[in-house]
Amino acid sequence: MDPLAETLAAIAPLEARAVAEARERQDRLTKPRGALGVLEDVSVQLAGLAGSCPPPLPAPAAVAVFAADHGVHAQRVTLWPQEVTAQMVRNFLAGGAAVNAFAAQAGAEVVVVDVGVAVDIEPAPRLLSRKVRRGTADITHEPAMGREEARRAMVAGIEVARDLVQDGSHCLLTGDMGIANTTASAALIAAFTGRDPGEVTGRGTGADEATHARKVDAVRRALALHRVDPADPIGVVAAVGGLEHAALAGFILSAAALRVPVLLDGVIAGASALVVGSLAPAALDACVAGHRSTEPGHSVALGHLGLRPLVDLELRLGEGTGALLALPILQAAVRALRDVATFDSAGVTNKN
Amino acid sequence: MDPLAETLAAIAPLEARAVAEARERQDRLTKPRGALGVLEDVSVQLAGLAGSCPPPLPAPAAVAVFAADHGVHAQRVTLWPQEVTAQMVRNFLAGGAAVNAFAAQAGAEVVVVDVGVAVDIEPAPRLLSRKVRRGTADITHEPAMGREEARRAMVAGIEVARDLVQDGSHCLLTGDMGIANTTASAALIAAFTGRDPGEVTGRGTGADEATHARKVDAVRRALALHRVDPADPIGVVAAVGGLEHAALAGFILSAAALRVPVLLDGVIAGASALVVGSLAPAALDACVAGHRSTEPGHSVALGHLGLRPLVDLELRLGEGTGALLALPILQAAVRALRDVATFDSAGVTNKN
Repeated sequence: MDPLAETLAAIAPLEARAVAEARERQDRLTKPRGALGVLEDVSVQLAGLAGSCPPPLPAPAAVAVFAADHGVHAQRVTLWPQEVTAQMVRNFLAGGAAVNAFAAQAGAEVVVVDVGVAVDIEPAPRLLSRKVRRGTADITHEPAMGREEARRAMVAGIEVARDLVQDGSHCLLTGDMGIANTTASAALIAAFTGRDPGEVTGRGTGADEATHARKVDAVRRALALHRVDPADPIGVVAAVGGLEHAALAGFILSAAALRVPVLLDGVIAGASALVVGSLAPAALDACVAGHRSTEPGHSVALGHLGLRPLVDLELRLGEGTGALLALPILQAAVRALRDVATFDSAGVTNKN
Repeated sequence: MDPLAETLAAIAPLEARAVAEARERQDRLTKPRGALGVLEDVSVQLAGLAGSCPPPLPAPAAVAVFAADHGVHAQRVTLWPQEVTAQMVRNFLAGGAAVNAFAAQAGAEVVVVDVGVAVDIEPAPRLLSRKVRRGTADITHEPAMGREEARRAMVAGIEVARDLVQDGSHCLLTGDMGIANTTASAALIAAFTGRDPGEVTGRGTGADEATHARKVDAVRRALALHRVDPADPIGVVAAVGGLEHAALAGFILSAAALRVPVLLDGVIAGASALVVGSLAPAALDACVAGHRSTEPGHSVALGHLGLRPLVDLELRLGEGTGALLALPILQAAVRALRDVATFDSAGVTNKN
């Protein structure tokens, strides 16, 4: 069986018994019923995913930053030159970016996956070279990549997740880097949700009015050209997506197959999760939305997926920064379920 | 000079030079301008508070859980018996509560301050005995406490903060425990904001319809009886507040005087911050709202104070849990300002 088919076959819903046990245990902990709000729901989800109550602490954790370039950059959809993708990859590897600072705070490992950067990156200890091609083609003129290339990028993501889990990670976080990747994200989100490009295309890294207008127009032309079918998610990502979107979809599917929680970062992860939701809806049970970015398409994607973000602080950086901010919250949710005393054991009167 | 006057005299605004330096530095870091959203503002605030850019990392941190009882409990404003306050204090000291689980996750120290529990609590290593009186009086019949008692509770809070900072804490977090303390919080919030008790009185630990109606009525009767003057904040807290509110106000003022950031928990901290805002508005520059609780009065208080919460996940537990969830976010904000490379140093093209 090929790795994608094998991964899809391994994905199953949350285990009902562990879900019920976690819900019942939450109600016996020394706190008013429901007083931990969203954290109670998340702890129950993770119990169902692990098939045990309490579930294992989602630590150690690793963020995989999938980097790739985008042919649609030629449509001047961003003010930043394409070379910044490779420059930022080197910044990640040198430990100088926000993802490094946040990972140090959260105690998470950072790996960078070159799944399609336009230039060669020098080998480095934290760099995984899984380049499928040197960036996508310009989606306003031709498909971003071939279907087989999309599958190869997905398999790269599957294997990165598998290796991180084999090496001991109990929680995976999505990260991304790719100048122009909010354009491809908007195209994916419009394709899967049916929303108009004008509603889901934001200013990314800070596009001015004219650049934003070109960006919306590029998304609109790409969708008109390719007439994608949301029931064929690999076809959609191959036509209008990015290599990092395909890889992230594989990464999320793999986490779900391995019953390991995956914290989603921002709009790029949200677009990738739409691919996942179309391929294997049960895989979304492994996902926790780390944050809500200011990109309008991200809110649309989260709403479509039924995911509620843990952090909502107007970030729009990517790299995995929003997911990393949410990691300690996810860990606290599991600690509460695991470590808080029950009314009986603590001798506290229960009026729940 | 008495400790309160000394504390008030030491409070000063953010240092403008450090604020400007931090804002300018944020714009040179390897990220699009503004891409870290609220975290950029928070990092700038902490630089101004410390008077240095970057500011020190807000670690180690300590949460002080101020515990006290409330005479208004006699009005059946909650389903929980008063004895639960002391039972939960023992649970905190045994490490069995949610505040302990979250503090373990965040790497924060927990101290419990008995500033007015109705019964005696056995001495314990993490317990500070600063009891001013055995709970407040019933505010629907008489003032909660005397003005001098309110001042003594404030001084207790001032001294707890001072001692924690002397012992090495670079960040303080507010915590609270006291059955019926959301009733006193609602009275304080109505008094300081002028809002109707019906708008600011919530269900606390899960009051049913009838209990909630009694709670709103108790707040309304207390305010009608005491006719408090918001320009006399110590008079307000003495009339309708709690001993933990007075202590928390002192704790926050002390943090501000010592130029140490203080993360506010939920509605009890919000009510206490209104006391602070009336006594010394500049002290609010030391405050970061940790989270927004589901109590309607908390949103009113945050709006009145102009504070934006870092976490908004429908928690309503108190104890310091919401502030603890925000601590790693605050630390990440400072790490970004301190550790992220600049465009120049990293050799990344800058299109900001």
